[in-house]
Amino acid sequence: MAMFPSTGQIIRCKAAVAWEAGKPLVIEEVEVAPPQKKEVRLQILYTSLCHTDVYFWEAKGQTPVFPRILGHEAGGIVESVGEGVTDLQPGDHVLPVFTGECKECRHCKSEESNMCDLLRINTDRGVMLSDGKTRFSINGKPIYHFVGTSTFSEYTVVHFGCVAKINPKAPLDKVCVLSCGISTGLGATLNVAKPRKGSTVAIFGLGAVGLAAAEGARIAGASRIIGIDLNANRFDEAKKFGVTEFVNPKDYDKPVQQVIADMTDGGVDRSVECTGNVNAMISAFECVHDGWGVAVLVGVPNKDDSFKTHPMNLLNERTLKGTFFGNYKPRTDLPSVVEKYMNKELELEKFITHEVPFSEINKAFEYMLRGEGIRCIIHMGA
Amino acid sequence: MAMFPSTGQIIRCKAAVAWEAGKPLVIEEVEVAPPQKKEVRLQILYTSLCHTDVYFWEAKGQTPVFPRILGHEAGGIVESVGEGVTDLQPGDHVLPVFTGECKECRHCKSEESNMCDLLRINTDRGVMLSDGKTRFSINGKPIYHFVGTSTFSEYTVVHFGCVAKINPKAPLDKVCVLSCGISTGLGATLNVAKPRKGSTVAIFGLGAVGLAAAEGARIAGASRIIGIDLNANRFDEAKKFGVTEFVNPKDYDKPVQQVIADMTDGGVDRSVECTGNVNAMISAFECVHDGWGVAVLVGVPNKDDSFKTHPMNLLNERTLKGTFFGNYKPRTDLPSVVEKYMNKELELEKFITHEVPFSEINKAFEYMLRGEGIRCIIHMGA
Repeated sequence: MAMFPSTGQIIRCKAAVAWEAGKPLVIEEVEVAPPQKKEVRLQILYTSLCHTDVYFWEAKGQTPVFPRILGHEAGGIVESVGEGVTDLQPGDHVLPVFTGECKECRHCKSEESNMCDLLRINTDRGVMLSDGKTRFSINGKPIYHFVGTSTFSEYTVVHFGCVAKINPKAPLDKVCVLSCGISTGLGATLNVAKPRKGSTVAIFGLGAVGLAAAEGARIAGASRIIGIDLNANRFDEAKKFGVTEFVNPKDYDKPVQQVIADMTDGGVDRSVECTGNVNAMISAFECVHDGWGVAVLVGVPNKDDSFKTHPMNLLNERTLKGTFFGNYKPRTDLPSVVEKYMNKELELEKFITHEVPFSEINKAFEYMLRGEGIRCIIHMGA
Repeated sequence: MAMFPSTGQIIRCKAAVAWEAGKPLVIEEVEVAPPQKKEVRLQILYTSLCHTDVYFWEAKGQTPVFPRILGHEAGGIVESVGEGVTDLQPGDHVLPVFTGECKECRHCKSEESNMCDLLRINTDRGVMLSDGKTRFSINGKPIYHFVGTSTFSEYTVVHFGCVAKINPKAPLDKVCVLSCGISTGLGATLNVAKPRKGSTVAIFGLGAVGLAAAEGARIAGASRIIGIDLNANRFDEAKKFGVTEFVNPKDYDKPVQQVIADMTDGGVDRSVECTGNVNAMISAFECVHDGWGVAVLVGVPNKDDSFKTHPMNLLNERTLKGTFFGNYKPRTDLPSVVEKYMNKELELEKFITHEVPFSEINKAFEYMLRGEGIRCIIHMGA
């Protein structure tokens, strides 16, 4: 067939629709409208499941937006582009990202921020920015978007500012995991905590993001990487990610920050918090060494949490920072993360523990709900 | 007279002794023993009064250590050196510092810390480190030291690690203020907050340290410097230090962090907290812009304070740091701060609002207790 004869046409394809909170997704035939101004339509080849998809699928406490097409970690190919899109063209290999980079706002113009004013993550919005409408429908009934990506569909429409163009030689079934969780943890360490060679790093939470943070510490040349998790089953797997020592807070009577200080002659050089539990955040901060310690918060807290510490812990020259998407600017920085994988500096295979065909996407949800494995790749074409 | 015929001898000289908490100092003739191993004896020419002297003189809540010779901001000349002191010699112009730099511990070896393990400030210790004894006495009765400096004396004995050797051309009656408060505020901005040219900086507290932080922001080329203080009388003086706008939290019903966010399209680029009040610390943190804002805590909190904030304020890419002595390593870095004054980058004259002869040292306490002026220089020879 000619490449992309579909340009300007509605595409009918398969998508996994979440009709209701917590109910298995249903593979449906959907209509995907052509991209409008500043939008691109992507063919998704591989997508993976991230905890955030499950969180908004369960919709406990969030605004429920249904029916919705979830999914935000993916790799694909540009099918067609809307008006005003100049730096992408059909055939480009891309990673869609849940947060964007307009390159025009104060955040995009700041070297220090990646929190684009225009395209910052919005989990409540189920429609496109330009016209407040969906590009997905079934028999004329709109199906809502998720964080501007909705990658659980063979085709999806995305704002061009949420698309990172990458090396076309990169295997999309591997680098698709860089769309969210893995880059978040990796960047938290490499871009924000910035451990020096030979330093000691504590990682709180050994899920996908925490393991990616550990991978960052390994790449940075940390000599000791201490993993902290309440689930001892994670410790064996974590060794593959460079974790050298393990602490299960349940095994101690004293606070975990004290355990770590005792192990490290006063504290670690850097810590990265990947659980979102506010007590773990406080421990992650208080376990860094005075004089130079830096704690980086990654995990998303609950609405009513309060971070509390004695101000002397700060005055003693500790630093506390938070990060969003590992401080990566999606369009500017993700291509170079892909290159880290291509030149074998970054290992991605070890994150991929399961693979399923699109028709069995609900299995990916089951694995995650059981806490089994790290990332499950969903093959859209299978 | 020959230079320093006193080497190895006890020196009899005048010192201002604090006999009891809160009672006026008394000028006494004291005996100053020769410096022991790794110590130096200094002739103090000028000293200035810092709030910390008053705090420990009042001794409300601290361990009272009396009789004691206070004083820690000063300029002087090395009179003699003890065994093992190789990089100082009689005649060197120096600033004694309340915290030291041994150059051998983990902190001194770290590029990031100035919190020397050996010579870190100790406000309770009234004796020398090497033998646990005082070098001051009156008729054999020991008079205690203060933070290793005790500069309210014509001669004092100090660990060589607490002595910064400076340019002998620098006027000691000006650069003496760099021993403590001014460097603390200046370094908090220049070394820790690091505002970029054209940025917006908020300074909480317009006392000596806060004004020095503002001076740092001026030197860094900040375009807006917002001073926050409950005492509106300070606003006029603060203009000399580059402060461009003022906020008195008493004038508003909303929290000051909200006032500042409204003035600055979402928050300042950097803030420096110089009051020690925990609510001001929280405001200083919450008034920085998401994505790139950095808040630096300088003011020393109360023992039971708790710093509290919603963790999302951190996750939105704000940074919270504390600093001690402006992150300056005393011996390594202070000489270059003196050079900043010598090359007219840094202005010190405007900090010096009063001068008194040594015999009237209690007047300096009165000025400070009345909140009058910034720094009072005490001329030891007068």
